[in-house]
Amino acid sequence: MKLVAVDWGTSCLRTARIDDDGSLIEERRSPRGILGVPAGAFPQVLRESCGDWLDLPDALCLVSGMAGSRQGWQEAPYCPCPAGFEELAAALSWITPGKVALVPGLSLDFLGTPDVLRGEEVQVFGAMDLLQLQEGVFVLPGTHCKWVRVAEGRVQSFTTFMSGEFYALLRQHSILARTLPAGDGPLDEPAFLRGVRHAQQSRSILHSAFSARTLALFDRLLPAALPSYLSGLVIGEELRARALHGLQVVLIGEPALTERYALALRSLGCDSHRLGPEAGWRGLWALARRLETRP
Amino acid sequence: MKLVAVDWGTSCLRTARIDDDGSLIEERRSPRGILGVPAGAFPQVLRESCGDWLDLPDALCLVSGMAGSRQGWQEAPYCPCPAGFEELAAALSWITPGKVALVPGLSLDFLGTPDVLRGEEVQVFGAMDLLQLQEGVFVLPGTHCKWVRVAEGRVQSFTTFMSGEFYALLRQHSILARTLPAGDGPLDEPAFLRGVRHAQQSRSILHSAFSARTLALFDRLLPAALPSYLSGLVIGEELRARALHGLQVVLIGEPALTERYALALRSLGCDSHRLGPEAGWRGLWALARRLETRP
Repeated sequence: MKLVAVDWGTSCLRTARIDDDGSLIEERRSPRGILGVPAGAFPQVLRESCGDWLDLPDALCLVSGMAGSRQGWQEAPYCPCPAGFEELAAALSWITPGKVALVPGLSLDFLGTPDVLRGEEVQVFGAMDLLQLQEGVFVLPGTHCKWVRVAEGRVQSFTTFMSGEFYALLRQHSILARTLPAGDGPLDEPAFLRGVRHAQQSRSILHSAFSARTLALFDRLLPAALPSYLSGLVIGEELRARALHGLQVVLIGEPALTERYALALRSLGCDSHRLGPEAGWRGLWALARRLETRP
Repeated sequence: MKLVAVDWGTSCLRTARIDDDGSLIEERRSPRGILGVPAGAFPQVLRESCGDWLDLPDALCLVSGMAGSRQGWQEAPYCPCPAGFEELAAALSWITPGKVALVPGLSLDFLGTPDVLRGEEVQVFGAMDLLQLQEGVFVLPGTHCKWVRVAEGRVQSFTTFMSGEFYALLRQHSILARTLPAGDGPLDEPAFLRGVRHAQQSRSILHSAFSARTLALFDRLLPAALPSYLSGLVIGEELRARALHGLQVVLIGEPALTERYALALRSLGCDSHRLGPEAGWRGLWALARRLETRP
């Protein structure tokens, strides 16, 4: 079996050819995210990206991400939690049986309110495979950060925090934007950690965010330090809302972002282990291997 | 003494002539908020609005709001809390001694983080005078909602919540905007209260806001109900962050907004009394009366 792994997101299409032992043979990237693909054109766009790989004998193509959403190639209905490799494999949406499949996202219901993720599931499964973990807390920072709790090899539950999006909203469109400099600049670690700390004293970011304005107003924080402070406030608010005591967390994502989370967690007495987004390729490979060994 | 009361905000200039007994003789409104007034033109713009009143014998003009900010007519430095009528009167910034003065805003410092308000102080003092209260909790909803605690006739402390602004950011610029209808429509009370309730179960709006998306995704809330639900989430988050038990609250502001707060408070077992923004005229009048009776 030769795996063609596909991460088809909103604004980007990434494809990879993965060897039998899980190692990466080649990776390709195109700006043809699902928002740029007309209905019906998904098979063609995929062939343009990696038709040569798909034509290899025994090729298996697994597609994760927003391609499986209602706005994508075809809806791959969410797989309800708890969900492990078996549940995910059974819930694949096959486009060409035995050859091309969409990986579903996960869903849950908490007191009548649903939560969903799509794309992050393969990163969590990849991290579990890479670190040989059957349980743990996995955090995937981003526009919508996901906190995923795994036990007995299955995702038991998860929680979405719109942290990246709130940061961008406050940064670009709020009254705070008037005081902040045009660019974010490099991370100002003391200002970032001051934001993390302040968030722990507040009960809501509706209140704590205003401190980015008043500290500037009273010249207690330089404008250049404000983006880092605000980032600390938002990430700190997310951490305030979690029970962190004694927790060890696996962070998965872009290094610049997981570094901030690791810093914030450490300042609150919490250890973390960091993995890059390549955990997703590993997750697709581990999923493919389970398909192969099924009876 | 004839009082010319002025509320000079960011986008609007409101002036009023107030009788000796505190009753309103006439009110005028112009779109010349401080953002539309060039530096140096403040005296002229004020004369254009109410020069006839200012020329009356014994006229006293008190100006509250953003005209006293750094971007306004002249900076009226914040008066630190605790502050009552005496402290506010002593901290007036006189433009023409005995004739025209800017009312300062209030400031405080909580664990090294400042908070400020400007304009709301006269509404709180007006409410105290109207209701003959020497203590209480006063809530002034708006872009930046202020919770003001009064004891012994003085503002002891206050807290800012950027609730109105967060609602607008989420409504207009977030991913939720894609699912929400173009207009807000009338308040959908059950959807609003569902948002208030959901906010009490969550520990942060970074998480709870995502439910506006997932409830729509799973067809558990109609798009038309989403603006009311989101409004309930934001106001509910603000209330979650306060200790409400057994509290009686005075709400001051636009009726459409104080009505929502009253509804949300009632659903959490908390009584409230509502006043309109005209409490501000009363506050300026009560302040003027104190000036008159000073030794």
